[in-house]
Amino acid sequence: MAWQRVIMKTPILTQEIIKIFQKFGLSKDHAQISANALINAELVGAYGHGLSRLKMYCDRISKKVINPKPKIKIKRISQSISHLDANNSIGFVAADIGIKTAIKNAKKTGIGMVAVKNSGHYGLSGYYAEQAVKKNLITMIYTNAPPAVAPHGALKSLFGTNPICFGTPTGSKIPFILDTSISVINRGKIRVAARNNQKIPEGVALDKFGKPTTDAKKALSGVQLPIAGFRGSGLAWMVDILSGVLTGGNHAGRVKDPFDDFTGPQNIGHLFITFKANLFQKNYNQRIKDNIKMIKKLPKIKGIKEIMYPGQNKFNRYKNNLNKKISISDLIKKDLENLKSF
Amino acid sequence: MAWQRVIMKTPILTQEIIKIFQKFGLSKDHAQISANALINAELVGAYGHGLSRLKMYCDRISKKVINPKPKIKIKRISQSISHLDANNSIGFVAADIGIKTAIKNAKKTGIGMVAVKNSGHYGLSGYYAEQAVKKNLITMIYTNAPPAVAPHGALKSLFGTNPICFGTPTGSKIPFILDTSISVINRGKIRVAARNNQKIPEGVALDKFGKPTTDAKKALSGVQLPIAGFRGSGLAWMVDILSGVLTGGNHAGRVKDPFDDFTGPQNIGHLFITFKANLFQKNYNQRIKDNIKMIKKLPKIKGIKEIMYPGQNKFNRYKNNLNKKISISDLIKKDLENLKSF
Repeated sequence: MAWQRVIMKTPILTQEIIKIFQKFGLSKDHAQISANALINAELVGAYGHGLSRLKMYCDRISKKVINPKPKIKIKRISQSISHLDANNSIGFVAADIGIKTAIKNAKKTGIGMVAVKNSGHYGLSGYYAEQAVKKNLITMIYTNAPPAVAPHGALKSLFGTNPICFGTPTGSKIPFILDTSISVINRGKIRVAARNNQKIPEGVALDKFGKPTTDAKKALSGVQLPIAGFRGSGLAWMVDILSGVLTGGNHAGRVKDPFDDFTGPQNIGHLFITFKANLFQKNYNQRIKDNIKMIKKLPKIKGIKEIMYPGQNKFNRYKNNLNKKISISDLIKKDLENLKSF
Repeated sequence: MAWQRVIMKTPILTQEIIKIFQKFGLSKDHAQISANALINAELVGAYGHGLSRLKMYCDRISKKVINPKPKIKIKRISQSISHLDANNSIGFVAADIGIKTAIKNAKKTGIGMVAVKNSGHYGLSGYYAEQAVKKNLITMIYTNAPPAVAPHGALKSLFGTNPICFGTPTGSKIPFILDTSISVINRGKIRVAARNNQKIPEGVALDKFGKPTTDAKKALSGVQLPIAGFRGSGLAWMVDILSGVLTGGNHAGRVKDPFDDFTGPQNIGHLFITFKANLFQKNYNQRIKDNIKMIKKLPKIKGIKEIMYPGQNKFNRYKNNLNKKISISDLIKKDLENLKSF
């Protein structure tokens, strides 16, 4: 790593972030929800969704494109289905209410579906999936994002990195959480690399002229490539439809870049689907334990010690980091100081 | 194409297949459902799911691993959720009842979910998705399949090509149907290539020793590669969980190859999720029309005339072929003759 790092204790850092968000007008409750999500991203090693975004959120509140005191409306469509108008809240809060409502609906009827509109970037889908999985639910979560990936055949970005997220209980402490963007790498990672003048791998992005690049800054102003060509492009399109067209959120490339575009709120949409894991088979937990065991027992490629299921590495990083101090770059430390003295 | 072709009129061919299935013990109704699915695959150009499989289905009925007279049980779990035990029916029939039940549930409550167990290969997921989309529903369909793709890090196939299918109305005649297997290419295509001694592209498969191959026969006894490494492997795992672990179907590599393994039924599982497209936005059809229009308007890569959405090409092929005669290989013609005189 090219940058200086500062070490801070997690609870102290969390308190600092809560205070900063409160200073910018969030209620204590909303500040806490948002701080927890940011700290979680740091602990699982998803730095592109962590503290590197704190200043952006505060800037958006200052410029009145995030509403610090939202009046969030929940419309009940049926016992299973709800529609949330987040009133341009910070995304964390909208998503927190969204997943909790979906969990409540599924607990009542077996299946829950919650669409959210007028929200913003909410960090990691997997963070919300975990909440549902802890309640013995399977969950599927979709959100769109600002243009970053070109549709197959197009010369211009339009789809976001539009993650597909799926979570299930595993009968063990470590949940199965697939949380995969459909770009070859995560936009947050390119952003962190750009901030720190690091290179990105080949085959990940094109510059704005359509040429392959390993320069993170050029990649940000260019086009990210979807996984698997037409297939990945189709999956990104699906996510744009499920989270934008369906919910009443922005779509078709209209979600604003949170870092660069302060001309209005993002109006991102999210979709949360949840259902009881044991709907059809009482012994679901035993069945999935067996599934994972069978796969882990397969002969391995040379150099691979264990076949990991999605979410396992993240969980291990979280566990390792939880009682350690968080190491932050001096750039972020400077953000924190500036925001505290705002 | 290296093989001889015979031309037949679609209705005549359909009647021949119905007669063959009836001869093998299917009811007229089930024979019709199965024939329609096979012919549809031919018309959309998905030959790997079409008549090349007819003999296999008949063989499985003869060897008593497909039940021609199934007693299919539908268990109602709630107004939205149903569980189907297909009693080892031919997959087409189980899937037909599955999607129709999911449509009925969604029409009643807004959302429908139907899990199917003890089923078999049902052809193209997109064929069932179309039924839901015609009723103004959005649909997500999952099914597993015999081992073909190695989990990331493993040296042995375990996941099927496990398609992810998503369908939505578009406000136009041509539905948006994403139906993408998570292997680099469709196993059916490799099978057709093997039957006709054709090569497959590079980067698609490894032989049984773990070496890259373009020999279709070697690929069939080897390992197919998932799209996008760990991501594609995770998506395949998700589909195995949703269609196998959840439903009561086989999973973790236990689905038998329908062509090679007659030691028992496949017990494939399917999951059908359906919901009203206008649940949250009354003008959904206008919104998706706008979405597609925006994307089609993007600047295009040189040589690309139109940015196509998933399902568009297939629909065009179907429309083109519908009133033409179907061209079948003499190998399949021979199958037909043999099966008719069975």
